Amino acid sequence: MTVGKRGILFVLSGPSGAGKGTVCQALMARQPALSLSVSATTRLPREGEQHGVNYFFKSTEEFRTMIANNQLLEWAEVYGKFYGTPRSFVEDRLEQGIDVLLEIDIQGAMQVRCTYPDGVFLFLIPPSATELRSRILGRGSETDESFQRRFGAARHELQQMKEYNYVVVNDVVVSACARIEAIIQAEHCSVHRNLELLNEW
Amino acid sequence: MTVGKRGILFVLSGPSGAGKGTVCQALMARQPALSLSVSATTRLPREGEQHGVNYFFKSTEEFRTMIANNQLLEWAEVYGKFYGTPRSFVEDRLEQGIDVLLEIDIQGAMQVRCTYPDGVFLFLIPPSATELRSRILGRGSETDESFQRRFGAARHELQQMKEYNYVVVNDVVVSACARIEAIIQAEHCSVHRNLELLNEW
Repeated sequence: MTVGKRGILFVLSGPSGAGKGTVCQALMARQPALSLSVSATTRLPREGEQHGVNYFFKSTEEFRTMIANNQLLEWAEVYGKFYGTPRSFVEDRLEQGIDVLLEIDIQGAMQVRCTYPDGVFLFLIPPSATELRSRILGRGSETDESFQRRFGAARHELQQMKEYNYVVVNDVVVSACARIEAIIQAEHCSVHRNLELLNEW
Repeated sequence: MTVGKRGILFVLSGPSGAGKGTVCQALMARQPALSLSVSATTRLPREGEQHGVNYFFKSTEEFRTMIANNQLLEWAEVYGKFYGTPRSFVEDRLEQGIDVLLEIDIQGAMQVRCTYPDGVFLFLIPPSATELRSRILGRGSETDESFQRRFGAARHELQQMKEYNYVVVNDVVVSACARIEAIIQAEHCSVHRNLELLNEW
């Protein structure tokens, strides 16, 4: 990457059961130059969680102020607790030329697409319906009804693929990582991110 | 790649002195699954050149018929001889799921963009103006005037970058190849080339 060039925001999302967390973790281990986005939340820290590492822990009032001041790329309220992506953390790193990875659910990703359309949106999917079925069942804790609900929801979520730039099949974690790494390298070669090259001639 | 999926046409182009030929040759050696597009021409075969391997050798009448029947993705007349890219060769391979690489000058690439907009257009550039200067001078056969003409033409051609999808800096051949390979892999993950996945669920 040219010195002084902006980093790129890569948003990794996908339906439940695609393996976002596992792929994200493996990718971070392989790509130390990537920076993982840290979320803000109003829930209390769990044992061992550090402010600024696992989460930015905020009071509800602080969080509401961030919403009001447009300081979040996306946010949601889940069971009375707020979660969101601080814009400054992401922007600071991009400004320093560092690529940022954001792992997030589909609703959050669609919000980020509105607030930061220059991001690259990756949709991670399981290799097949059969594989998704066995991944959900593999958790072992599903009743027939909750399985049907989760499986139906995942199939419905898959239709959101059209809103993304790339689809990455998570057949084997290391292959999914390699595909994402290729996408990262390719995006750095995209012409619209390199127009400053024209001034160097 | 899923069985039955179409291949992708990758068009490698760029200004004079970028090293298109060298990179193309290195890429073909590294990626045996890629198919290199074979041009048609009305010039006579040179020693060792084989029909269907180096060129499809055609009579002027045959070539004119191909133009009239829209059987060429691009063509040009150079010193009274015709050169062009047969559409059927490219289409047949894409249909078989094979990616095709087409190495071509900028004018040709711009024609292909009109006749085959679904292609991926890569613009290969030298790492710097200084490096381009020494590459042109390195050929050893340049007068000052011809150097100025070539150097000026290359700088002018660089402005065409905006018409392409990707820009690949050819600093070191093996790095340029790695970038192109990443672009190939990324393009296979692009959502608009994978919409059929939605039917599998």
